[in-house]
Amino acid sequence: MFTHTKRLQFEAKPEQPDPVFARKLQELIGGAWGEMTVTMQYLFQGWNCRIEGKYKDLIMDIATEEIGHVEMLATMVARLLEGAPATETTRAVQDPVMAAVIGGMDPQQAIVGGGGATLSDSQGVPWNGRYIVASGNLLADFRANVAAEAQGRLQTARLYNMTDDPGVKDMLKFNLARDTYHQNLWLAAIEELKADGVEGTVAPNALLDEEHTEHATSLWNLSEGDESTQGRWAHGTAPDGSHQMGIIPEPRPLGGPADAPAPDPKLFATYDGSKGSPRDPRLTGVKGMVGKLKEGFSD
Amino acid sequence: MFTHTKRLQFEAKPEQPDPVFARKLQELIGGAWGEMTVTMQYLFQGWNCRIEGKYKDLIMDIATEEIGHVEMLATMVARLLEGAPATETTRAVQDPVMAAVIGGMDPQQAIVGGGGATLSDSQGVPWNGRYIVASGNLLADFRANVAAEAQGRLQTARLYNMTDDPGVKDMLKFNLARDTYHQNLWLAAIEELKADGVEGTVAPNALLDEEHTEHATSLWNLSEGDESTQGRWAHGTAPDGSHQMGIIPEPRPLGGPADAPAPDPKLFATYDGSKGSPRDPRLTGVKGMVGKLKEGFSD
Amino acid sequence: MFTHTKRLQFEAKPEQPDPVFARKLQELIGGAWGEMTVTMQYLFQGWNCRIEGKYKDLIMDIATEEIGHVEMLATMVARLLEGAPATETTRAVQDPVMAAVIGGMDPQQAIVGGGGATLSDSQGVPWNGRYIVASGNLLADFRANVAAEAQGRLQTARLYNMTDDPGVKDMLKFNLARDTYHQNLWLAAIEELKADGVEGTVAPNALLDEEHTEHATSLWNLSEGDESTQGRWAHGTAPDGSHQMGIIPEPRPLGGPADAPAPDPKLFATYDGSKGSPRDPRLTGVKGMVGKLKEGFSD
Amino acid sequence: MFTHTKRLQFEAKPEQPDPVFARKLQELIGGAWGEMTVTMQYLFQGWNCRIEGKYKDLIMDIATEEIGHVEMLATMVARLLEGAPATETTRAVQDPVMAAVIGGMDPQQAIVGGGGATLSDSQGVPWNGRYIVASGNLLADFRANVAAEAQGRLQTARLYNMTDDPGVKDMLKFNLARDTYHQNLWLAAIEELKADGVEGTVAPNALLDEEHTEHATSLWNLSEGDESTQGRWAHGTAPDGSHQMGIIPEPRPLGGPADAPAPDPKLFATYDGSKGSPRDPRLTGVKGMVGKLKEGFSD
Amino acid sequence: MFTHTKRLQFEAKPEQPDPVFARKLQELIGGAWGEMTVTMQYLFQGWNCRIEGKYKDLIMDIATEEIGHVEMLATMVARLLEGAPATETTRAVQDPVMAAVIGGMDPQQAIVGGGGATLSDSQGVPWNGRYIVASGNLLADFRANVAAEAQGRLQTARLYNMTDDPGVKDMLKFNLARDTYHQNLWLAAIEELKADGVEGTVAPNALLDEEHTEHATSLWNLSEGDESTQGRWAHGTAPDGSHQMGIIPEPRPLGGPADAPAPDPKLFATYDGSKGSPRDPRLTGVKGMVGKLKEGFSD
Amino acid sequence: MFTHTKRLQFEAKPEQPDPVFARKLQELIGGAWGEMTVTMQYLFQGWNCRIEGKYKDLIMDIATEEIGHVEMLATMVARLLEGAPATETTRAVQDPVMAAVIGGMDPQQAIVGGGGATLSDSQGVPWNGRYIVASGNLLADFRANVAAEAQGRLQTARLYNMTDDPGVKDMLKFNLARDTYHQNLWLAAIEELKADGVEGTVAPNALLDEEHTEHATSLWNLSEGDESTQGRWAHGTAPDGSHQMGIIPEPRPLGGPADAPAPDPKLFATYDGSKGSPRDPRLTGVKGMVGKLKEGFSD
Repeated sequence: MFTHTKRLQFEAKPEQPDPVFARKLQELIGGAWGEMTVTMQYLFQGWNCRIEGKYKDLIMDIATEEIGHVEMLATMVARLLEGAPATETTRAVQDPVMAAVIGGMDPQQAIVGGGGATLSDSQGVPWNGRYIVASGNLLADFRANVAAEAQGRLQTARLYNMTDDPGVKDMLKFNLARDTYHQNLWLAAIEELKADGVEGTVAPNALLDEEHTEHATSLWNLSEGDESTQGRWAHGTAPDGSHQMGIIPEPRPLGGPADAPAPDPKLFATYDGSKGSPRDPRLTGVKGMVGKLKEGFSD
Repeated sequence: MFTHTKRLQFEAKPEQPDPVFARKLQELIGGAWGEMTVTMQYLFQGWNCRIEGKYKDLIMDIATEEIGHVEMLATMVARLLEGAPATETTRAVQDPVMAAVIGGMDPQQAIVGGGGATLSDSQGVPWNGRYIVASGNLLADFRANVAAEAQGRLQTARLYNMTDDPGVKDMLKFNLARDTYHQNLWLAAIEELKADGVEGTVAPNALLDEEHTEHATSLWNLSEGDESTQGRWAHGTAPDGSHQMGIIPEPRPLGGPADAPAPDPKLFATYDGSKGSPRDPRLTGVKGMVGKLKEGFSD
Repeated sequence: MFTHTKRLQFEAKPEQPDPVFARKLQELIGGAWGEMTVTMQYLFQGWNCRIEGKYKDLIMDIATEEIGHVEMLATMVARLLEGAPATETTRAVQDPVMAAVIGGMDPQQAIVGGGGATLSDSQGVPWNGRYIVASGNLLADFRANVAAEAQGRLQTARLYNMTDDPGVKDMLKFNLARDTYHQNLWLAAIEELKADGVEGTVAPNALLDEEHTEHATSLWNLSEGDESTQGRWAHGTAPDGSHQMGIIPEPRPLGGPADAPAPDPKLFATYDGSKGSPRDPRLTGVKGMVGKLKEGFSD
Repeated sequence: MFTHTKRLQFEAKPEQPDPVFARKLQELIGGAWGEMTVTMQYLFQGWNCRIEGKYKDLIMDIATEEIGHVEMLATMVARLLEGAPATETTRAVQDPVMAAVIGGMDPQQAIVGGGGATLSDSQGVPWNGRYIVASGNLLADFRANVAAEAQGRLQTARLYNMTDDPGVKDMLKFNLARDTYHQNLWLAAIEELKADGVEGTVAPNALLDEEHTEHATSLWNLSEGDESTQGRWAHGTAPDGSHQMGIIPEPRPLGGPADAPAPDPKLFATYDGSKGSPRDPRLTGVKGMVGKLKEGFSD
Repeated sequence: MFTHTKRLQFEAKPEQPDPVFARKLQELIGGAWGEMTVTMQYLFQGWNCRIEGKYKDLIMDIATEEIGHVEMLATMVARLLEGAPATETTRAVQDPVMAAVIGGMDPQQAIVGGGGATLSDSQGVPWNGRYIVASGNLLADFRANVAAEAQGRLQTARLYNMTDDPGVKDMLKFNLARDTYHQNLWLAAIEELKADGVEGTVAPNALLDEEHTEHATSLWNLSEGDESTQGRWAHGTAPDGSHQMGIIPEPRPLGGPADAPAPDPKLFATYDGSKGSPRDPRLTGVKGMVGKLKEGFSD
Repeated sequence: MFTHTKRLQFEAKPEQPDPVFARKLQELIGGAWGEMTVTMQYLFQGWNCRIEGKYKDLIMDIATEEIGHVEMLATMVARLLEGAPATETTRAVQDPVMAAVIGGMDPQQAIVGGGGATLSDSQGVPWNGRYIVASGNLLADFRANVAAEAQGRLQTARLYNMTDDPGVKDMLKFNLARDTYHQNLWLAAIEELKADGVEGTVAPNALLDEEHTEHATSLWNLSEGDESTQGRWAHGTAPDGSHQMGIIPEPRPLGGPADAPAPDPKLFATYDGSKGSPRDPRLTGVKGMVGKLKEGFSD
């Protein structure tokens, strides 16, 4: 259960309205790497965490913090839109800079949001639930969290260079700092997972004996040129400490022809009959399996 | 420019058709963390790479490999659908297991694809371009790549446990191995970025002096309980080597009230007038800026 | 079955082209609350209506009217784009206002639509079928209809203030009037549902005896401050005439810990074993139920 | 800013796992009318509210409550999936009911979520930000809220009839009750808006003098049959108290031909020249306006 | 403007309910190639048609017909769902075939639609406006129409083989026939465009002198093997009557290196400086152009 | 399996950066009819092709070529963005043309892509997998390919008229030529299908005896006016050589009332009972069928 206080986590007051920047800031609200993504990613990771204690508590701490970040940004957008020329008619756009502002605004912030933020990115595409991941595997998810905080800080840093409003910059300095901390945090949490012995270097820490080990070590040099042989990834021991790394300079396909089987005639694929009919499923396929199952039933 | 050979990178032949598994395998083709995602993520990262040489060559090697992985999976799906009971009428479903198979199939693989793979995930949602990231910042992107390979290997491992067909498992053993290598590869590439001095630990490696440093160190304990104080992220030096890590046990909001400014009356927000009118934009806002600009024009 | 006349329901002739407004007008065509939404919402409500007579006839009347509204708007967009500077090269944009117009135009109206409307909103996001609802429950749906007409009139009113073209305003005055009537219409239809005794105040008019009645009356005061105690919703009889309304000033969680059960080991969630194994499904879960069913078979 | 307690708002413990119901329950999490929709709709309405005091506090109370509802449902899904047959191979599906369960499960809850909820609906389509509305106009938005709570209660009631697990039903009885209260609440809030004189019956409460009043009163009888003349919406005074309601039995189009103007030849529309060239924009269109503006510049 | 009659264009009465088929039929309603697509594609083509007369009248005839097809299908879905086991609890699924039916049903047809059709495809993905095209170029669009009718007839034919209900088959026989006619119709309309001299063979019938003619004739043999040299496309005169067709057996790239320019340092791309700084825009880029424009202003 | 060379298929060097055109060019990368669509459409058609030899080789040749086209366009976008004013603050926009440029730019190319292309269209909507079709039926698919190349060439031609940069035009002249060839190619491939006798004129070449032939010949004149009777589609022999074409001047509905059956009371549709209860499924519906099946079991 959650509770709410009416004060912002950090101040979000622009010195001046700036409707063009209000549009750009939507990227941090509803973009694929924005604050809504980390909010929902962490909430679902917390709800799906199968190991009680410090990890789950940590995830829920940060998830709860991020809802407040969305609040800061939504408030900032509303403030940047104060007095925006949303309802100027085209005829009124006699001032060129005003015209440019109108061209660069997000029309939905006015038409749909009445001067407030929407749950969309800077191009107006709505945020959606496929942006998040909560797999239950903490190593895989913490890596996704490091990645999200890195992209988030990068976008924040770019936006920091797109304004010179002191109030906006002050808020972004806070966001940058939190993204710095969160990157360190998730990197530290990955170290902790290893120290606790619950995860290794490769996610998931499983099936390492069953996979085709001989294919777990080499770079396939499929793009011309051999510059890629010069890197760390082509030599020595892998970061997981248990594989050697190398390169296949001239890779050849290991599989057979890439062809599809004879089609079901009732699906009307174009076909010349040269592959015969689909294998009789009574013998080899699903229906055949059913036959076996029926025998099994009599046991 | 690309060229194509007609043989598969690795073999993809099931012993028996299995249309229910053919649906599940769509997750590795068109899922948010499937092979199309890494294909496109790496292609766009390569095309957007601003540092020629080993990194760009590496990215293009792996990107080109991944197109071949999609090919393997699409071929496997077509083979798993051979003789599938797609065109059985409901009345024919007298065998309960056959009925269950029909229930678990992807109807579009038959109706739309004619017995072949679609570019969708296991729930039928089409793959889309927001699943990828290519930011130009290699540290941020390589972290996203590690995360993608980890989620990809995790999903492959889960699917490995959902079949006992030796041919399917053989292909998945190859995929697992490549995902193992790719995780090691991108982790090694992150080490290389640091060794080369072009990126640090925090992405982007910038604005570290301008951000609010005092907020770059502490966990805000916003979810009840203090288990999260027990972790590596709450003590000692941060992974970046330059921050101390700590915790704020009872965090308080640092900002003021979360309120929005007076609205534009022509947008018809519900309003009682208590905040007055929007700040006169001629003085403080966009139009005011325009005024200043016009003065500037006379310079 | 439908038929078509070649004249518009109402005139849609702008005095002058205005390509920036043509973009904004897309919101009324393909926006979440635009005319396509009400067209499709009413069509599917009509087709899914289970009570023949006045209600179904009403829904189909309005649905059919709305297709004509999309027609008016699409025609207006094409006319607003007449002579639009879509094919001016960048070099030609020597006139600042023209440059601003190009900045504010919808590029797809030219590149994709050849100077006509698309089925997208003012940010270019395509209209989609999840915007509509047709539940078969008329009270729930008529409320959605009132809401849609209210948002539609609100957006139309905002757009009305974004143009001073007499021809455009003339069309919007018609749209505003229809939205006024439609709001009244659906409100009247809700009254009629009650008068006819087929629906109550709460939708669905069912399970009122089974729900936890003690939780059907109180506001949970989860956001700090008690201003919300001052409203009509915190006192007296509820609009349905059968509940008292009140407030819980300091709400406490009524449930237990928010934890997830032991995971399936084959799904590779991070886990320390402290919750044991998943409950044996042969006893308590699905497989167990199967066992019971098999016994049932012998009856 | 938000804080979190680790206990659920209400209990969410099923007596037995039920993976088929776990899929259906996704509709209440990530469906267009599910709990995520009301969470986000109310949060953005609160952040975009321009009238401080009871209304804003109310909206934030309910928004904060709804985050907790998502938490209850996500926890319930994880519990319903305990021991689910996600990793059974196809060959193992010898029991027909088990096979049916596998057919009816959401494959992504296993492959992506590792046995937990996703942010999608019961068909696997991800939740997205276009499901919400926060217009700043409280009458329009409260109507959308009534509609959302009605559809939400309707779907909950349907799901209530799809299970007989006492623990699931207990939680749903709570949800039903909250939806009952929330419908009453938003209906009461609409009454309060009118009592406070800040909104009328028609949203927005504006431009009523400018709209074409003669078109604000009548039903256009565009679907054959006259059953619709029998309803409340075709007689007497409208719910807003200021319009009379009637019907146009045989409506005729009021506009002219539905034709589009001459196209820009550089956009290559098929055209026979019969409409001449596009109107010269130097005289009547945007470029002409520019000319006027340039004159204006000399002032 | 449109009007509606309450009778179906063709009968849509199943002999028996069949909820599994009701799900599959959604593909013809809300699939990318379903009836909603052709409805909307033709409506927008008609509204965007710039040549009055027979073509526009034709498009509007078919568009109006297609709305009635959606009506038939939506009605059929509701009838196929009559008495469907939507509200059976899991425990009740003691009959294996019933269990299979439940597994194969569309849960949203019950939970959201109350036993009626939704505006989604057979996998539950909502129909969206990007499925349609209305470019204003009739040759390009009529080809898209032929393609849509062909895919539509193909899917209808597949569905025809998935049922043996005489009533369903009767309706599908009508749909098949209309799709046959519509394919012939659009093919004939393409012939007519050529006969009328308003379009050629290649769309658009323009810029044929400006394009690089030497690249308009040859197949690039980029996939290994030379089977593709055996086809009609590699020999003789092209269908447009004005090009010769051939093949480049061993194609070589004609462009230079695929590299990106020096990045803007404020966007924090990873960069070693080896490409220098971005070209000075005052001289060569946008800002430079501005400079030229300013000079132009003084003219 | 694929391999990559580091040189572009054709040169893609603009004379000058042009960030506004860089946005428009996104339509050819990630638009519904852009190069990613044909890339993926042809790849999946090739993988799903059931007839080995010239057709499959052809499809894979063109598919592989198209990946290289995406590469050319992505490279061009990066070059057009060199030195773009992405990180200018609003205050710096004192130059009106620069302001207009900022208004017309794609903000995500800077914020997300760091100055590179994204996988979205010119309105920022991400490319998705529903844009493609690969049905296995080559006639249906080749028609879709002709349509795709026609729309692609049309959009390229429009973009060609939106720039006067010689380097950009040079690349587009190549694209135009390839689109010309590809249209001819797929038209020739359709001729070849017929010459080979594997497909006819109507797709699929099946069920022509079972469909209602009497409905396969006539235009339903549902939009007022009889101009459509003047066309080729209303007279003589159809393009398939086997149907006569005609018109129904005043079409009447052939079906009965468009009503839905009695609803399941547990789904809470609004209902007055006048249709009775749903047909007893034990006799006529699914459950009844189950009964029959059980009898069948005893055989």
